[in-house]
Amino acid sequence: MASYTKFEYFNFTFPRPFVAHIEVNRASKMNAWIEPMWHTLKKIFDQLSEDPQVRAVILSGAGEKAFTAGLDVHEASTQGITTRNLKSDPARRAVYIRRHLLEFQSCLTTVEKCEKPVIIIMHGITIGLGIDLASCCDIRICTEDVMFAVKEVDIGLAADVGTLTRLPKIVGNYGWVKEVCLTARYFGAQEAMQVGFVGRLKVAELLASKSPVAVQSTKELLNFSRDHTIEDGLRYTGIWNSVAVQATDVQEAMLSGLQKRIPKFEKL
Amino acid sequence: MASYTKFEYFNFTFPRPFVAHIEVNRASKMNAWIEPMWHTLKKIFDQLSEDPQVRAVILSGAGEKAFTAGLDVHEASTQGITTRNLKSDPARRAVYIRRHLLEFQSCLTTVEKCEKPVIIIMHGITIGLGIDLASCCDIRICTEDVMFAVKEVDIGLAADVGTLTRLPKIVGNYGWVKEVCLTARYFGAQEAMQVGFVGRLKVAELLASKSPVAVQSTKELLNFSRDHTIEDGLRYTGIWNSVAVQATDVQEAMLSGLQKRIPKFEKL
Amino acid sequence: MASYTKFEYFNFTFPRPFVAHIEVNRASKMNAWIEPMWHTLKKIFDQLSEDPQVRAVILSGAGEKAFTAGLDVHEASTQGITTRNLKSDPARRAVYIRRHLLEFQSCLTTVEKCEKPVIIIMHGITIGLGIDLASCCDIRICTEDVMFAVKEVDIGLAADVGTLTRLPKIVGNYGWVKEVCLTARYFGAQEAMQVGFVGRLKVAELLASKSPVAVQSTKELLNFSRDHTIEDGLRYTGIWNSVAVQATDVQEAMLSGLQKRIPKFEKL
Amino acid sequence: MASYTKFEYFNFTFPRPFVAHIEVNRASKMNAWIEPMWHTLKKIFDQLSEDPQVRAVILSGAGEKAFTAGLDVHEASTQGITTRNLKSDPARRAVYIRRHLLEFQSCLTTVEKCEKPVIIIMHGITIGLGIDLASCCDIRICTEDVMFAVKEVDIGLAADVGTLTRLPKIVGNYGWVKEVCLTARYFGAQEAMQVGFVGRLKVAELLASKSPVAVQSTKELLNFSRDHTIEDGLRYTGIWNSVAVQATDVQEAMLSGLQKRIPKFEKL
Amino acid sequence: MASYTKFEYFNFTFPRPFVAHIEVNRASKMNAWIEPMWHTLKKIFDQLSEDPQVRAVILSGAGEKAFTAGLDVHEASTQGITTRNLKSDPARRAVYIRRHLLEFQSCLTTVEKCEKPVIIIMHGITIGLGIDLASCCDIRICTEDVMFAVKEVDIGLAADVGTLTRLPKIVGNYGWVKEVCLTARYFGAQEAMQVGFVGRLKVAELLASKSPVAVQSTKELLNFSRDHTIEDGLRYTGIWNSVAVQATDVQEAMLSGLQKRIPKFEKL
Amino acid sequence: MASYTKFEYFNFTFPRPFVAHIEVNRASKMNAWIEPMWHTLKKIFDQLSEDPQVRAVILSGAGEKAFTAGLDVHEASTQGITTRNLKSDPARRAVYIRRHLLEFQSCLTTVEKCEKPVIIIMHGITIGLGIDLASCCDIRICTEDVMFAVKEVDIGLAADVGTLTRLPKIVGNYGWVKEVCLTARYFGAQEAMQVGFVGRLKVAELLASKSPVAVQSTKELLNFSRDHTIEDGLRYTGIWNSVAVQATDVQEAMLSGLQKRIPKFEKL
Repeated sequence: MASYTKFEYFNFTFPRPFVAHIEVNRASKMNAWIEPMWHTLKKIFDQLSEDPQVRAVILSGAGEKAFTAGLDVHEASTQGITTRNLKSDPARRAVYIRRHLLEFQSCLTTVEKCEKPVIIIMHGITIGLGIDLASCCDIRICTEDVMFAVKEVDIGLAADVGTLTRLPKIVGNYGWVKEVCLTARYFGAQEAMQVGFVGRLKVAELLASKSPVAVQSTKELLNFSRDHTIEDGLRYTGIWNSVAVQATDVQEAMLSGLQKRIPKFEKL
Repeated sequence: MASYTKFEYFNFTFPRPFVAHIEVNRASKMNAWIEPMWHTLKKIFDQLSEDPQVRAVILSGAGEKAFTAGLDVHEASTQGITTRNLKSDPARRAVYIRRHLLEFQSCLTTVEKCEKPVIIIMHGITIGLGIDLASCCDIRICTEDVMFAVKEVDIGLAADVGTLTRLPKIVGNYGWVKEVCLTARYFGAQEAMQVGFVGRLKVAELLASKSPVAVQSTKELLNFSRDHTIEDGLRYTGIWNSVAVQATDVQEAMLSGLQKRIPKFEKL
Repeated sequence: MASYTKFEYFNFTFPRPFVAHIEVNRASKMNAWIEPMWHTLKKIFDQLSEDPQVRAVILSGAGEKAFTAGLDVHEASTQGITTRNLKSDPARRAVYIRRHLLEFQSCLTTVEKCEKPVIIIMHGITIGLGIDLASCCDIRICTEDVMFAVKEVDIGLAADVGTLTRLPKIVGNYGWVKEVCLTARYFGAQEAMQVGFVGRLKVAELLASKSPVAVQSTKELLNFSRDHTIEDGLRYTGIWNSVAVQATDVQEAMLSGLQKRIPKFEKL
Repeated sequence: MASYTKFEYFNFTFPRPFVAHIEVNRASKMNAWIEPMWHTLKKIFDQLSEDPQVRAVILSGAGEKAFTAGLDVHEASTQGITTRNLKSDPARRAVYIRRHLLEFQSCLTTVEKCEKPVIIIMHGITIGLGIDLASCCDIRICTEDVMFAVKEVDIGLAADVGTLTRLPKIVGNYGWVKEVCLTARYFGAQEAMQVGFVGRLKVAELLASKSPVAVQSTKELLNFSRDHTIEDGLRYTGIWNSVAVQATDVQEAMLSGLQKRIPKFEKL
Repeated sequence: MASYTKFEYFNFTFPRPFVAHIEVNRASKMNAWIEPMWHTLKKIFDQLSEDPQVRAVILSGAGEKAFTAGLDVHEASTQGITTRNLKSDPARRAVYIRRHLLEFQSCLTTVEKCEKPVIIIMHGITIGLGIDLASCCDIRICTEDVMFAVKEVDIGLAADVGTLTRLPKIVGNYGWVKEVCLTARYFGAQEAMQVGFVGRLKVAELLASKSPVAVQSTKELLNFSRDHTIEDGLRYTGIWNSVAVQATDVQEAMLSGLQKRIPKFEKL
Repeated sequence: MASYTKFEYFNFTFPRPFVAHIEVNRASKMNAWIEPMWHTLKKIFDQLSEDPQVRAVILSGAGEKAFTAGLDVHEASTQGITTRNLKSDPARRAVYIRRHLLEFQSCLTTVEKCEKPVIIIMHGITIGLGIDLASCCDIRICTEDVMFAVKEVDIGLAADVGTLTRLPKIVGNYGWVKEVCLTARYFGAQEAMQVGFVGRLKVAELLASKSPVAVQSTKELLNFSRDHTIEDGLRYTGIWNSVAVQATDVQEAMLSGLQKRIPKFEKL
């Protein structure tokens, strides 16, 4: 655990065994994101993904007002990618912008690819990049005061760091997705709950108590299946579990059940 | 705007700036569809798609009783494709029927492919082809008196102009989709709302006030993502937005925000 | 009908014309599944699929306590695949386990591939394999006392006979799917209804009264579309219906409607 | 046959029964293509596709020097899409260009989608658009004097009307494809033969003598399979042939064989 | 080895350790196939696939004249699927035919799915079903006198047991595939070699001497990759090999190399 | 250019303007690869990809004997991933191995993803990892003395860093691919040329003289199309080129042609 360096803009704690808590911390700016932050995010989650001390990750935001006001529009409009290479032709500028976007997307995707389940807790203003980020997490929770919006259309943009790609696969109501993405309107905790964007349970501690082989396999297989046919999902599951069941966890889970004790799983 | 010819079976108006309103008008027959109507539908939506005067489209039905009673069964059974080429062998008949179906599907698909968002407002009887058509739209609204049904099974058919393909990707409750498609039973506004087939908000005017680059990009990216993996969705988004962000809309959106005035976007 | 042999662990009846009822019957063990049962399941559904006497299938469980307690863990841990070939190296063991899993999956998939619609009725304990099985059915119904759980994580495993692959495509709330699969917690009838895992209507008799061409086509086209793009779904529908509409069912459905009599469809 | 109107830039003849011959005819400009030509191409092939008098199509170019010098660069640089909307921002210009490209692509795709097999015969200069077009045909033949090139890179462009998408699926040598597309170098008949871009046989008359059900089914199934998995290819073939074998052609083919006479198939 | 029953129409021998040889034996009819033969084929290959005594399979045909004359046309036209259910409507007949075709396809696919590499040796007449079958094998060899043809078009049919789906993925010359499939013309050993349909080496014994883990993994990964993207291929390879490298074969292969002795691998 | 640090195991030069030359340099060990080398490879290609001074990359190996003898088997068997975590259960070991493989694959994939075309020149022994690496390059060249082999099967493994996934998409002869991958046999320059694994032309300088927009777009569109349907390939091309044609390169290419001078393109 000592191996985590101190990260600017992020607080990092282990509130319970096997549970890591990342708190986005730029509260003075309503946790608006600037470029160095998503590079740091990638570093953190790449490390968490392979850290055997971690079995569940909580992601939240510091301050009372906001999980995040999204991208720091001031920084983006003064130093962002669209302010650079202004003398290049539109095709070359597009290449520079695309490289930048793909790298940005790739940083957020590390949250989705993190082998450990990630629970995000949102409060207050949670717009723009906040929705992109939430869509990469496994389980989404929010407080009563949350105000969500896919705000990009209101600054003349389509959301491009994952919301338009991931949100329709999270929430089964495609008309609702189109409506909130096209109108950029706010919606609250109750509506988010009804459509299935957020859930009720805080499960980090519970997940950390389970077999890490079982939990991580379940995350991976659900993520794989989302993007593949039933046929492919079953085939991948077959090869995956042919080795996962050779873990000691099955025996430990069963034995501890019979012996009515808390199971103790090897690290992973 | 003068360029729209008068269309048989369709009323065409511009109730507000940038908002086109198409009203299916064969009210004497409960807006049942005959073959010339879907050819006209294609023409209208191909034109709307590229018309810079249009930023949102409303689609509704004339008369009090029905948005549509579906395909005009009388016409179909006396002059439809199944009444032709009766002397040909089943394989050749199948070729003729398939060509006809693919063309029919292709006409409805122009609604989905229309670059501008399409809001459908349904009332009264809305069955068969009505569901196919609604499934091509971006946002679905209905009145309290609506009576929906995927009625095809009751005339010995599987729905073939898009309902079975699109409805499961709109509504997240796959068991419900199977139930209503297999039983052909009616369902009302409340049930449609609960499963997410229809929404609450009439957004045409609102969408027409937003950046057309942002709105049209958002529609395109959501439609693309529906049929592709996360990986592909992000890659397509990257190249799409690398040029979309070079629009003047971003600056106009931000400036108008600071200046507390209504933004004015270039046409598209 | 005489052609069905008596099956161990399954009761087989025809409660109404064209409706077959399969009852899993190992009530003394809470209908826990052992290996011979899923081989028998495959045999039964392969036969039902092509039996012209069958137009709808009901699947339920005997006894008061449970639809099923899932895989018989005692049998699995004493005679199951993980108890065999213990001297082989992990790669060879994985091959044997994979063959076994793929065969197991393939047996359950026959329920999904059955050409006739399958309605499952669940009660009491319905966990593990029960969810895998329900996910293969077309329509899911439950009693008030049902207790569902995707229980595999609690025995140190990821669910591998289809739940992780199929459940996210049935229920539109992906966060909920992740939560119940990762936590292995119980959920009841009301929650299952809200997320769309189960529905309300017992439709077997109704489906059996409809055109078998229409019903079976609808099932096939919905299953195909789930795993394919809109483009491919429409193309497949085109070729499928080019011959399905040449059935006598369309005429019979229409004529019986006009004549206000119950339609009588040829067998299929 | 009388129904074909006279087309500007195209000669249209029926050299033999059931064989249509389209000759691109702008020989004074080395058959360079201007925009009206590809719109006409679409019209011609849409009509050929459903014309029962046609069972095979030959496509060639008039004049001695060239099958085609590709896009008419002079016209493109003075009136083409890149000369329009110069005052719009790069994002809006991209929208106009994209619409134009997709329509251009879609015109050429009608050759690929033509239900009848298309044999292209190329001679002399055959560059740029000539390769795009050839890649849409089923069978490619050339004279000894042919000079091929994927020339687009030399005018600062990537080929965008299909070559980059289709050529790698026609020719199994992916390194060769990359080399000729990246270098824009010329290659002749022998090299084209070696890599499989062109073949030896002039088969139009032969194909026109075969069962149209068999020939058209074979084209469709090969095209479908190119873009799909083995699994999907077999499934589609199953439904396709379940009706195709109900044609009278099988009996006629067999009987004529036994009776040693030329088979006579119903039109399609 | 004693466990193989005697199969009608097939000779079964073990010419060398770990090498099974299946000889199609209906030489009096030029090895033309009748329905019971493909059911037997499936049984044989399902058993070979999991038989640890088998590491490579040779498939050839008895008699001097032909590997196979294809489907037994006489049997097909007097007792085949198209002769049944003649009173049913075309839609129902299509269902019966489709079931039959899918089962036929599925029997041949067992050759492709056989975990052990299959080498087919063809001689004399090898048409129709012979090409379907060869396309399921891993390595294709032929004698000088072979006469190949995709003959189906000449009996008024499109090939439907796999040729149209698999051949284009075996041979990189797509134009050639279209030509031979559309014309039904014969081609010999030399042409087959040039386009890559057949190879030169008889490798059964060699393959049987290699690590079965390595050989079977290589077959599986190549087959998987054929139908998937690079991204998916690499992901599947990653999970596959994460367990395959835990076999004892790596050590045995290396040690035997150092000790200059023939490696001896555990069975699989 | 000064910005490239000195890399251990790699020589880095700019033999001509816009052409970078990477030489693998561990000649004393026949350029066998150890783990730090592929991490360095990734760093180099990530940098080349975005370096505006680079328009083409040459990759070759130092020393006379070998482009590469593949993975350094001695290092792998003493310090490699399979030597670690020996006390963990097979499932956990599989996780560690899989992470390692995916990272290894990902390093090589940077060569494929490099925006600039990569030409590989191979000589002498080129086996195992050499084939994986060559399969990531755009153009493959070899000397007469080259000895290729997909050697992995002979050390009891399936090739897992890309050969099995990429080679079948490079070479159209799938039977040949299976043969060389299953037998691990050597093949030389002539055979490699015949099947299309290598080509003849050294094109680096030529490519460096072309429009970088055109060249890089062509590489990207060919790579995208390889893994997608025709439909998707065309759609992606449409959006890609809608901005690429807004480059100044088209005008410069045309003008320089008219003025008979060497074009001078802006950097990219």
